[in-house]
Amino acid sequence: MSIVITAFERSPDGGMGLARDTRVRWALEEAGQPYEVRLVSRSAMKEPAHLAVHPFGQIPTYEEGDLALFESGAIIFHIAERHAGLLPQDGNARARAITWMFAALNTVEPPILELVTVRFVEGDKPWAKERMPLVVERIRSRLHQLSARLGDAEWLDGAFSAGDLMMASVLLRLKPSGIINEFPSLAAYVARAEARPAYQRAFAAQLAINAAPLPAS
Amino acid sequence: MSIVITAFERSPDGGMGLARDTRVRWALEEAGQPYEVRLVSRSAMKEPAHLAVHPFGQIPTYEEGDLALFESGAIIFHIAERHAGLLPQDGNARARAITWMFAALNTVEPPILELVTVRFVEGDKPWAKERMPLVVERIRSRLHQLSARLGDAEWLDGAFSAGDLMMASVLLRLKPSGIINEFPSLAAYVARAEARPAYQRAFAAQLAINAAPLPAS
Repeated sequence: MSIVITAFERSPDGGMGLARDTRVRWALEEAGQPYEVRLVSRSAMKEPAHLAVHPFGQIPTYEEGDLALFESGAIIFHIAERHAGLLPQDGNARARAITWMFAALNTVEPPILELVTVRFVEGDKPWAKERMPLVVERIRSRLHQLSARLGDAEWLDGAFSAGDLMMASVLLRLKPSGIINEFPSLAAYVARAEARPAYQRAFAAQLAINAAPLPAS
Repeated sequence: MSIVITAFERSPDGGMGLARDTRVRWALEEAGQPYEVRLVSRSAMKEPAHLAVHPFGQIPTYEEGDLALFESGAIIFHIAERHAGLLPQDGNARARAITWMFAALNTVEPPILELVTVRFVEGDKPWAKERMPLVVERIRSRLHQLSARLGDAEWLDGAFSAGDLMMASVLLRLKPSGIINEFPSLAAYVARAEARPAYQRAFAAQLAINAAPLPAS
């Protein structure tokens, strides 16, 4: 059965790899699984055909035969559970790798998403400028804790896992702001992740779509 | 091996069951697993002994023999994977239940957490009053989509699962604000979750701690 994922027809980041399809592409590349991509326009995302697969009208989705999933965390876990290379075999190490997936998505990403709110969603509001340093400080607090835990290790818990894939994907969102560079060990961690051949292939694939001209409509 | 979780010595909500240990208690009750609780003060959470188990200095944590986990999502998944009652046996249904866990934590909870930011963290800021309706509108948008997907079903995908446990736990955070009552089918969904005997036991257990007098120091 072939795997079909969805991605933005045009990513809001113009191909920087920050849209969540990149994480899923990366996991599929790490697992050595071929996949097809169905591009979805911003307007088509809110239409019934797409909402039937993704109730919140976003990308990515994952379809394989009868199975339809959404949420990058769930999709990557599904891939990691079925193919070697993304989760340790030892039960306790596996549970800890899964913990880092959830930590990336529920503890580290939410304050980072506030950057999008303050900069874009509420960018024209009178409080945007004064709120920005508060938002940045909350991100720094999390990065400080994460950096303390990582120490001088290469990855968060032993070998590279889906937990690192997810954490690096979340931290990559901080590259445009430069905040990540305040934490050299985390910047190096992200650089190690980006250097992986599987990430390189995922990044190139999403860039090819976002750099290509839109088909005439 | 006995299971030990951590909880607030005094929850910021005074026993409304909104702290994340309630979710873990609930999962353990659904799975019929006995557990012990170690209470942690707000200051002890930021000390090395607790940070060794939870790098972000929060509760809950989960310890069982050699295994130490944090993040309510990861803990509940760990419980659900090892005991019957929280994940379907069919592979595709299981993957969809896990999807709802991630959707609750990464898509529905982040806008809800903004309520805490606007009301408490930034409650004394001049923009708090004007920002509140923007935050509420973003929550409504998610609830509208969730309500459309739930339709008139009892649970999100077939039988009650860890996905429902997590989604209901996230939606419970909206009870104090009353926003959930704008969506009668979601309010009924949360009420069904609250009526489960396992939830009742979990709620009573956290309330007993928060209603008891603090030990003399």
